[in-house]
Amino acid sequence: MSSDSATTGQRGRPRDPDFEDRVFDTVVALYVAHGLDGVTMGAVARGARVGKASLYMRWEDRDSLIRDALAARIVLDTGVDTGDFRADLRRLAEQMLDMLWTDTGLAYMRRIIDSSVHPEVFRRGDGSSPIVLDARRLVRNAIERGELPRGTSPTVLMDMLFGASVMHASITPPGLRSVAQERSADYLDALVDAVIAGATAHAR
Amino acid sequence: MSSDSATTGQRGRPRDPDFEDRVFDTVVALYVAHGLDGVTMGAVARGARVGKASLYMRWEDRDSLIRDALAARIVLDTGVDTGDFRADLRRLAEQMLDMLWTDTGLAYMRRIIDSSVHPEVFRRGDGSSPIVLDARRLVRNAIERGELPRGTSPTVLMDMLFGASVMHASITPPGLRSVAQERSADYLDALVDAVIAGATAHAR
Repeated sequence: MSSDSATTGQRGRPRDPDFEDRVFDTVVALYVAHGLDGVTMGAVARGARVGKASLYMRWEDRDSLIRDALAARIVLDTGVDTGDFRADLRRLAEQMLDMLWTDTGLAYMRRIIDSSVHPEVFRRGDGSSPIVLDARRLVRNAIERGELPRGTSPTVLMDMLFGASVMHASITPPGLRSVAQERSADYLDALVDAVIAGATAHAR
Repeated sequence: MSSDSATTGQRGRPRDPDFEDRVFDTVVALYVAHGLDGVTMGAVARGARVGKASLYMRWEDRDSLIRDALAARIVLDTGVDTGDFRADLRRLAEQMLDMLWTDTGLAYMRRIIDSSVHPEVFRRGDGSSPIVLDARRLVRNAIERGELPRGTSPTVLMDMLFGASVMHASITPPGLRSVAQERSADYLDALVDAVIAGATAHAR
């Protein structure tokens, strides 16, 4: 659905092309700062400077708004499959780590937790699983090409790759964040090598 | 401080040996369900069936109560150092994974995020870093004993170990949790092997 239908109301209000962007930005910011309880239709309307009625024209309720906003913002390009497994893996980890330094990354982590705690808000598969499941495809393809030994565990491999990225970003104290970001390339190289060596050692 | 001093008020109220346990349980439950905003002195008092005044006798404010409760409940025995690196690592990962299936684990993950977002509540080092820093000691000791090659990165190794555990526990859908818990031993064996192989391959 285009945002026009939500913002060009019956009373002929002007089109508001940034409507969806502002709403989604506000949802992410509120969610990161206050968690689920902080994301109310009223707070989103105030933060995004839109009418509460226009929110309800577009989204049935608060939960569907949160799901849409997070799905739109938490995006990794897992379709990458160049045929060079190490390069694909590094690109995936780099996207993940880049995201994790931002508010979107904090929202990603909050959603992982809340998917366990609040199944009434997030559906099965709203957590991190789509990204991880997609990424496992890379492993299976690399096994078929013979780049990885049969018996390589996609689960252990992707858990290590994404999990280490999450740990790295989240335990770096705010004061050291800019230094860690500068050194991201070295960290990613070491991580990808370790993950491949580890996951394939077990299979050989 | 013993809980007696908090609960034996000047008016000679009966001792309440479970005071601290009930308060900490309530803090963890509220924090897991609602995040920081849900943990108010009033909500804790109601949930734990204690007087608000008795909370303020013991804790200056909400933030110090949260810090104390989470520090008391989120505990891994990182002091383990038997001299067998693989066994130590497996025991550490097992403790982490066991914790992650519980409310305490969800609180641990929430605290990691909130340590970034709310430095006014959590101090530097309140996040996951104490556990991870302690664990890195194991790696350094194993290097000194010659069990691991010099050049092994304690950072990458522990990021993979703890990060994979976090991913594994958090992306398992609630319906598959009991199956995954039954298979924990296999997962831990594969993970610890992969982590050691990966972290040491890079150093050799």
